[in-house]
Amino acid sequence: MKEGTRALHTIFNPDRIAVVGASDNPGKLGYHVMKSLTQGKYPGRIFPINPGRKEIFGLKAFPSLAQVSEKIDLAIVVLPAEMVPQAIQECEARTIPGMVLITAGFKEIEDRRGKMLQEEIQTLAERAGIRIIGPNTFGVVNLHYPVNASFTPEFSSIEKGTVSLVSQSGGMSHLLGFLFIEERIGASKIVGLGNRCNVDFSEMVEYLMDDPTTRVIALYLEGIDEPRPLIEAARQGRGRKPILAYKAGRSMTSDKASLFHTGSLAGKHEIYEGAFRQAAILSVGSSEELLDSAKALSLCPLPKGNRVAVLSGQAGPGMVCCDVCETGGFTIPPFSQEIQKKVDRLLPPLAIRTNPVDMGPAWYDAETTKGIVEAVLRDPEIDALVICVMFASANRAAAGVLSEFLRENRTEKAIVACFSAPHGIWDLEIKALEQGGIPNYPTPERAARSLTNLLRYRKLMEKGD
Amino acid sequence: MKEGTRALHTIFNPDRIAVVGASDNPGKLGYHVMKSLTQGKYPGRIFPINPGRKEIFGLKAFPSLAQVSEKIDLAIVVLPAEMVPQAIQECEARTIPGMVLITAGFKEIEDRRGKMLQEEIQTLAERAGIRIIGPNTFGVVNLHYPVNASFTPEFSSIEKGTVSLVSQSGGMSHLLGFLFIEERIGASKIVGLGNRCNVDFSEMVEYLMDDPTTRVIALYLEGIDEPRPLIEAARQGRGRKPILAYKAGRSMTSDKASLFHTGSLAGKHEIYEGAFRQAAILSVGSSEELLDSAKALSLCPLPKGNRVAVLSGQAGPGMVCCDVCETGGFTIPPFSQEIQKKVDRLLPPLAIRTNPVDMGPAWYDAETTKGIVEAVLRDPEIDALVICVMFASANRAAAGVLSEFLRENRTEKAIVACFSAPHGIWDLEIKALEQGGIPNYPTPERAARSLTNLLRYRKLMEKGD
Repeated sequence: MKEGTRALHTIFNPDRIAVVGASDNPGKLGYHVMKSLTQGKYPGRIFPINPGRKEIFGLKAFPSLAQVSEKIDLAIVVLPAEMVPQAIQECEARTIPGMVLITAGFKEIEDRRGKMLQEEIQTLAERAGIRIIGPNTFGVVNLHYPVNASFTPEFSSIEKGTVSLVSQSGGMSHLLGFLFIEERIGASKIVGLGNRCNVDFSEMVEYLMDDPTTRVIALYLEGIDEPRPLIEAARQGRGRKPILAYKAGRSMTSDKASLFHTGSLAGKHEIYEGAFRQAAILSVGSSEELLDSAKALSLCPLPKGNRVAVLSGQAGPGMVCCDVCETGGFTIPPFSQEIQKKVDRLLPPLAIRTNPVDMGPAWYDAETTKGIVEAVLRDPEIDALVICVMFASANRAAAGVLSEFLRENRTEKAIVACFSAPHGIWDLEIKALEQGGIPNYPTPERAARSLTNLLRYRKLMEKGD
Repeated sequence: MKEGTRALHTIFNPDRIAVVGASDNPGKLGYHVMKSLTQGKYPGRIFPINPGRKEIFGLKAFPSLAQVSEKIDLAIVVLPAEMVPQAIQECEARTIPGMVLITAGFKEIEDRRGKMLQEEIQTLAERAGIRIIGPNTFGVVNLHYPVNASFTPEFSSIEKGTVSLVSQSGGMSHLLGFLFIEERIGASKIVGLGNRCNVDFSEMVEYLMDDPTTRVIALYLEGIDEPRPLIEAARQGRGRKPILAYKAGRSMTSDKASLFHTGSLAGKHEIYEGAFRQAAILSVGSSEELLDSAKALSLCPLPKGNRVAVLSGQAGPGMVCCDVCETGGFTIPPFSQEIQKKVDRLLPPLAIRTNPVDMGPAWYDAETTKGIVEAVLRDPEIDALVICVMFASANRAAAGVLSEFLRENRTEKAIVACFSAPHGIWDLEIKALEQGGIPNYPTPERAARSLTNLLRYRKLMEKGD
């Protein structure tokens, strides 16, 4: 393990954490950090540091880091900005290798003292060999350990999974974190980089490429001073794990705002787009698309070609999928003869039986619907499937039967689904479907677009260096 | 009231409904129609028609329509296709003015007998003066009466409101219906037109233009043989109520599928786009955009100009909004001097204080956040606002304070919001916000895009005839 990687590994898997600025006052971020750690079932030991308290959250508090005799792996710092340089020196004295520096007020502020303060801590950290996530970050979360080293306890309710998110913005991390919960996407790490004192996107990508619980790397970027290291890290990892990037700052105003927010100009959007393409980073255009596509990449095989079958329980949603799939580079070809014959045998001549298939007339008979999916799944001239079924009383059984069948018949074809019903009706079936490797989406368009992004990613990979 | 309008009015507000083909067997659609009516709290009287039963759902059943002595306003027909011509004649004998014909198997099927059967019932209905919704429809729902004349009881859980949806596809009606529930959008009518025997989009638009509980008309179209009557109806209603249209069939394959599904070719997408523009119909590109924009149009005033203020609790989501707003035709200008001074007094110099504003440093103090919103709301050089706040423990109070303030200070500016939190945290605050006329969206991009669609609609209206 490289030295830098080892320090990051310790930040995500610490045995002992000191919370410098821990508090039992709910008006302080130091309180919420303590809550995140304790409620998030962190299995290691926590050392609250606060000179004014004997006990915080039922744990013995220490007046300073110097008083802790145990070896500390990670310091989470929530002190006022001007106290941070001293805190770094105290960490150095205790040879603490990693820090999550939540404190804001560095180069992101109007006052130029912020910039100077950041330069000061950067120098101190370098001398001490401390890796710092932040400053101006909400923190980091590792769902697999688990450790929620952030001021937001709610991150602990994200399911454990294989998507890791690295974000330049704490606000976007929160938005995306809540969407992980809402869309049932499993996460490995959630990281807010903030002002990137000495840990930037490139180091995180390098680390996550080696991280066994990360399968997909999703990035949210605003602007970085020097994009080359990131591009280089992505090129090094090319073909190992997919990287997606959502880059804000397309407009003049947000580009300007980026300078204030993170101290970095967002820079020409087109330049980033080109660099992303070169490094096979899949560029996306919205929060939803970032997570929808990360979900697909974490669950599905890539389609081997661009031939898609659209199977829907009602014709309308199927047509909508055709629109998105064709626009996204798929063809919707006729089935091979033998397969078409099977479909014809199963479906009465009351609907569209060629690709796209309207399975509607087989509604009452989930087994027949299953037979159609089974036939198409075997067609060697089809590379991917979109399956859409909108709930209606008559097809209640469809989701369960199809979900079970698809789980038991894993395939090399990429499959995405839109099973849609009011909350509580198909929740378990949809969960089972996703556990079987088929991502489900709230609308047919989002299902189809995620599939087209799998194809886009495959094409990016093929272009090669 | 015009004759045609009167018949439609009766279909949506019937005193007495006959369910021809009612059933107590859950394997039959006639069962689910009975369930929708009874569970949906229909206040009128229901007459189940079934020659084999004395009682259905605890209601006296009749062997045929002829045996019912009361005047019937609406017949919901769920018989096999070949029995429909006779049913129409029986309705004629009882002078029933309206029918919801759920039965499929007409011009949408492969077999040409379907087409012939549809021609036959069309002739019979014309002679009898009966308005038919369908055939091949899931039904109609009027949330205000209420009457759920469909085979899907779940439609009754949509909130009562002012958006009416007219859809050519039952599947898309279900998808969109469930999204109404999920996104807390209030509906007036939900109508599945199916094969449009003698009620088409144009009649529905005419009717809804006069319907007092409808404020916004949302259309989902695949293909219609003759779009001119719809365009004419929209032009007639121009300026009275906004119409939005989501048209599927952009791709070759879905265009072909449309012919099978509804018996009508979807037709060149560009032709529709041009016609929509002429008639000031706002064209949208996805299910989500259709409902997001309908929600904004139902709640917000139109922006008087294109100057937007972006206020966010965290800089990242604000930047994302700027991207979408600028792309959509808004400018994000500096505040007027006096307003900027107020903002500067309220916010410490730790963040972006010009437009877009990062209200983050005022997090702990919801009153200060309110002060900033209040100041910007008064800026005469601002036409619209986007407000984004991602939940974090430290800003829990923000949603409540802002929601209350905005409700009590209604304004002529268009305001959209993205308050995002895990389920259960801000649900009540978000509901209150929307009751105050400010639509909330799950992502900053969707909030901003809905605002840009308000601007697009305003520009469409300005072009004028």
